Order: sequence, then structure tokens, then C-alpha cells
Amino acid sequence: MTGSRELTLGDIEALAVGAWILGTGGGGSSYLGLLNMRRLYSEGHRVSLMPPEDLADEEWVAVVSNMGAPLVGQERLTDSRTIARAVRLMEEHRGVAFRAVMALEIGGGNGIQPLMAAAHLNVPVVDADTMGRAYPEAQMTSVAVGELQPYPLSTVDCRGLESIVDKVPTWKWMERVSRKICVEYGSIASTCKAPRTGREVKQWGILGTTSKAIAIGHAVREAQARHTDPIAAILEVEPGKVLFRGKVMDVERRTTEGFLRGKAAVVGIDDDRGTRLVLDFQNEWIVAWRDGDPIAMSPDLICVLDSVSGENVGTETIRYGQRVTVIALPPPPVFATPKGLLAVGPRAFNYDIDYRPVFP
Amino acid sequence: MTGSRELTLGDIEALAVGAWILGTGGGGSSYLGLLNMRRLYSEGHRVSLMPPEDLADEEWVAVVSNMGAPLVGQERLTDSRTIARAVRLMEEHRGVAFRAVMALEIGGGNGIQPLMAAAHLNVPVVDADTMGRAYPEAQMTSVAVGELQPYPLSTVDCRGLESIVDKVPTWKWMERVSRKICVEYGSIASTCKAPRTGREVKQWGILGTTSKAIAIGHAVREAQARHTDPIAAILEVEPGKVLFRGKVMDVERRTTEGFLRGKAAVVGIDDDRGTRLVLDFQNEWIVAWRDGDPIAMSPDLICVLDSVSGENVGTETIRYGQRVTVIALPPPPVFATPKGLLAVGPRAFNYDIDYRPVFP
Repeated sequence: MTGSRELTLGDIEALAVGAWILGTGGGGSSYLGLLNMRRLYSEGHRVSLMPPEDLADEEWVAVVSNMGAPLVGQERLTDSRTIARAVRLMEEHRGVAFRAVMALEIGGGNGIQPLMAAAHLNVPVVDADTMGRAYPEAQMTSVAVGELQPYPLSTVDCRGLESIVDKVPTWKWMERVSRKICVEYGSIASTCKAPRTGREVKQWGILGTTSKAIAIGHAVREAQARHTDPIAAILEVEPGKVLFRGKVMDVERRTTEGFLRGKAAVVGIDDDRGTRLVLDFQNEWIVAWRDGDPIAMSPDLICVLDSVSGENVGTETIRYGQRVTVIALPPPPVFATPKGLLAVGPRAFNYDIDYRPVFP
Repeated sequence: MTGSRELTLGDIEALAVGAWILGTGGGGSSYLGLLNMRRLYSEGHRVSLMPPEDLADEEWVAVVSNMGAPLVGQERLTDSRTIARAVRLMEEHRGVAFRAVMALEIGGGNGIQPLMAAAHLNVPVVDADTMGRAYPEAQMTSVAVGELQPYPLSTVDCRGLESIVDKVPTWKWMERVSRKICVEYGSIASTCKAPRTGREVKQWGILGTTSKAIAIGHAVREAQARHTDPIAAILEVEPGKVLFRGKVMDVERRTTEGFLRGKAAVVGIDDDRGTRLVLDFQNEWIVAWRDGDPIAMSPDLICVLDSVSGENVGTETIRYGQRVTVIALPPPPVFATPKGLLAVGPRAFNYDIDYRPVFP
């Protein structure tokens, strides 16, 4: 037993920064989640972070996320009660009590969603997720690669819409049905995914990712405070690599079928002068093309950072003129396996290219 | 207490004919449901018809139907186990046991769906429905006009897809969310609608409609056996009116957004020679235009019958060359009220005309 620890508001401020970076452009802005947590902490709520190894094998964990198009999250604001309701609805439907909550994806606002639910429900947050980043679709998780049961899933929105996908034959069917519900809600819904046992979390979860996001966030915030290079600070705590430095020249973006899709073009400066990087996205950055050559792709994490502040730039907020530094971080090992690549490699996003890792 | 009675296979054969006529073109062909019931009866199953007044006020009734586009029902065949599973799923979700099942709509195959569920679940079928015919959308029921609770709803398909719409703010939202699920399933799903209490059924149900459909079916089948006019036989048991006799000249039909929409044109013969009737449909016949003048419209029942056999012609099966007789039957009184007309009058189908009743 390593023991849970109570998160400070400073940890949560750092989590908001770090999770947004791990979101690889998606997962939704973490800022609105942070505002919710500041309010909840000021009201006296506290949230603990629980090491996955403290879970008993048979205890149940609620896996939560907001689902939908990040751009819509800028209009329909995050409310902590909605994600808590999604968890309660699952408890009512399944007749189980959850020992803890956990992030579906540590990336972006979804890295903070479990904290919001936990504050209302008085349970700890497990230090783990199922993506180690953010991904757009339901079958793009470590638990799907592990072929764990894909159902049930609950979806809730702020207007009192509540639905449950109770059973599906495959993960892809879960994605299809839940996505249509989400789109009809207005392309954003708070969801509680298929409940996981402690054993499943320990075997198939991507462990320690909440702590990792907090560490990245602390590194950036400390560098900002000291006026040192925040991107160098990230690369001190994570084994990443700078891919490109430049200025955003063009963004094409459309919200379609519940996703935010498009591309952003960056022209190089400094060492990259005279070259051009195009970043394709489906909620998240999927493939980075330098002068037409795919130099980074999923499952590697492609992170677009503000060159001065080191903070993340999201696919829904990137705009002309921003100075950005594009870095790559290594993927969770489960996604670099043949089965993992089937789920999240470039072909899973309809690119006819083989995965070429940034970190061979 | 008036007592339940066991339905004979002859009753069910008649129900298939009568319900298909009350379907006003929709509700799905009743033939596949009849085949299921013949098989279930040959295996020893029996189904009882229960007068609504035998329900205790607090007993629960499952309201069932297949939802979707009738044309798809010609491809994905009716299976009695799917509708039974929708009822069981609702029992599991709500933690209630149903005293009986009941049709959402007596029209078409949906008039037989409760019998299929009842055979598997060993409960009686209540002699009532919530439409007195068939209608395409969830909010077009007597229980919606009565502003009863619209949720929850379960949806099941043959591939093991199971979803629940647990809560919605309005009937129209129930229609929106459940329709999208249905469309993603492939535009057909077996559903158990919001459970109703015995009190609600007795107050807001349209009572006696199963018996009515059986009586219409017996009238047609007896006329067929005696080689007398089956349409005259219908008008002896129901206070209806012949609107038009003619030959189908043209059909436009498309399956869109989970509905079958289009129009059929009929040229007059006999007394109607030289005139033309156009029938607009959304799953069901909604408005009948004689030379551009709307002579019949929802909530009046518009029934298109084979002129020789007296059997119903559905919106998904009507075709060039058929000799048809179009009759009108009076609507359930609840739909001719101001609130009823808001739900199912011509304006509810986006026609900018006032309801002009065939039976003033």
C-alpha cells in the first residue's frame, strides 16, 4: 500500500497545464475544469489521488470523460455536476457502488473531469487513464486493446438528457451508438464509460498518468515563474523531442459528425526556416507532415505548444500568427504493439501509411 | 372484472389483417409478426387479451413497438425474441415486474408486437394502445397528449445492441434521441416505451383497439371467404367512409432520417374517373389531396385498401397498377382536441392547413 494523497490546489493548477499538453490538441480545454475545481476547493471540497495498486481486484472504478467536439465545449461550459450525475446514473443502472473514479483520457479537460466527479461523490481519483493522452474515439483505449467489455456507458447533459448504451457487440459499435447520442445532445455529453474492476485497471490501465500530467504542469509553471524556457523544462521531465518551431499560417476547421476535424499549417522559423509543417487533426493532432513527409504520427504524442509560455495550443483554439513549438512525446507502450497500432495507428485514421516512430 | 380471454390463432390471423388496416399505411407489415405467432402457437405458447379495466391502478404495463422505417422491416425480419428482450431490459433497468404488455400503436405489425413479447414473457396483452392507429413519432400518442412521463425507453436489435434513453425533458426530446439510436442500429429497433401504470392506461390509453382490429380482420376474412365485398364489410363494423377508388399511377419513396417518406398518386375509376388523389406519407398516410384539395388528413385515419381483397396496402409496398379503395375512419377523440391536434394535426407534419375532419 503506497497510500492516497490529497491534491493541493497547486497540484490541480499544474494538472490543468500538464493534461492540456498531454491532450495532443484535444481532450477539450482544461481551463473550464480548473475553474470548477477552484470553486469546489473554495467550498471546502478536497480530492485525493489514489495509486492504482491500492485498488482491490474486485472494487469498481468509474471511468469518466466528456465526449464530443472540443469546439462545442467552448460554448456549452463544463459543469462538475453533469459528470457526477453520469457516474451516479451508472451506479443506479448497474446497482454497484464505485470505489473511485478515473480518467478515460488524461489529455485536456478530460484529465480534470474525474476530479470534478470525485469532489461531488467523495471518492478518490485513481492515478491512471486508458489513453495516456487524448484520442477521439471510444475504441482507442488500452482497455479496448485489451478486449475488455465495452459496455455499458452512460451519457448525460445539462438539460436533463440521460441515456445508457447497455450492450454492444464490439467497441466500434459502442463508438457508433454513443457518438450518435452525443451528436443529438449537441455534440457534447458527459459520460461514464464501462465500469472497470481494480484488477482490470491494474492490468490494462495506463498507470501514473495523473502524476505525470501534474509533473509536466509544475515544470512549465516553475519555468514561467523563473522566466526560463518552459519547453526545455518539459523535456527535462519527459523524454520528448522538438519537431518544429514556427508561426501558424493557416487553419481549416469544421465540426462534423461530433468531431472537430481539419488541419493547421505552420511555417518554420529559426532552424526550420524555409520549411512548412502541416498538422492534421481529428479532435487531436494525428499526423504531422513536414514538406509533405510524415515526420510524426499517432500513437506518438504530437504536442503544439506556445513557444513563449510553453502552454498547450488546442485544435479548437489554434489561430493565425501564434508562435508555436511542436514536440513529440513517446506513446504508452500498449499502443506501439501490433494490436495497439490497429486501434490507434495511422491506418485507424484512414491514412495509408505505416507507423514510423519518432522514438525507435 | 370482465376477465381475460385466450386469443385463438384465428383471432391473431384476423388481428394481422385488421391491425394492418388501422396502420393507415404504416406500423410495418403485420405478416412477419403473424408468422412469428403461428410458430409460437405451434410450439404451445398461448396469449390472453386482458380488458384494461382489469388492471389494478398501481400495476405496471410495458408499452412496446418496433421503431423505424417500415421499408427496413422488409429486410431485417421481425423476431419475437427481440421485442421480449426490450421488455426484459426495461424490467432490469427499472427494477419492476410488468403485469402485462400493450401496443404503442395498434397499427400494422406493431399491433402484433405485444403478442410476441407476451408469448415469451407469459403475461397478458392489454386490449388498448396509445394511438388507435399508427403514427411515425414518439410524441404522437395519447399518453403524450396527456403529458405523462416520457421516459425511460429501451431499444434492442438482433445483433445485441441495447440502449436506454433514461431521461429527457420533453416527449420531442425522447423522439430525437431514440430516433438517432434507431437510425444508427440500421433504422429499425425493438423498443419498450415508458412504463405505464394501470391507472394511466385506464385514463389515457385508447381502449379496446385490439378487439377493434380483430373485429375488422374477421369482417374482411369472412367477406373474402363468402366472396362478398370486404370493404363494405369493414364499413359495417366501423363508421367509415369511402374517399376514392382508383389505380396507383406513381410512387415516390425514400428512407430518410429513420422514416419512410414520399407520396403516391392514384387516378380515379368508376365514380372518381377523371380525378386524381395524391397521398402524402411519413411512414403513415398523412394527407390525401384530391386534385389539389386536402380531403382527408391526420388525425383522421386514411386507409388504402386493395379493392378486391380489402387488405391493407402499406406505404412501403404500394406500387404501380394496384387497384385501391381509399377509406377514412374517425380518429380517437383525444386527437381531435386542441391539444391532440397540436400533437398529430396537419401542422404537426409541417402542413400549413387547418384540420378539416371527414366526420364533422
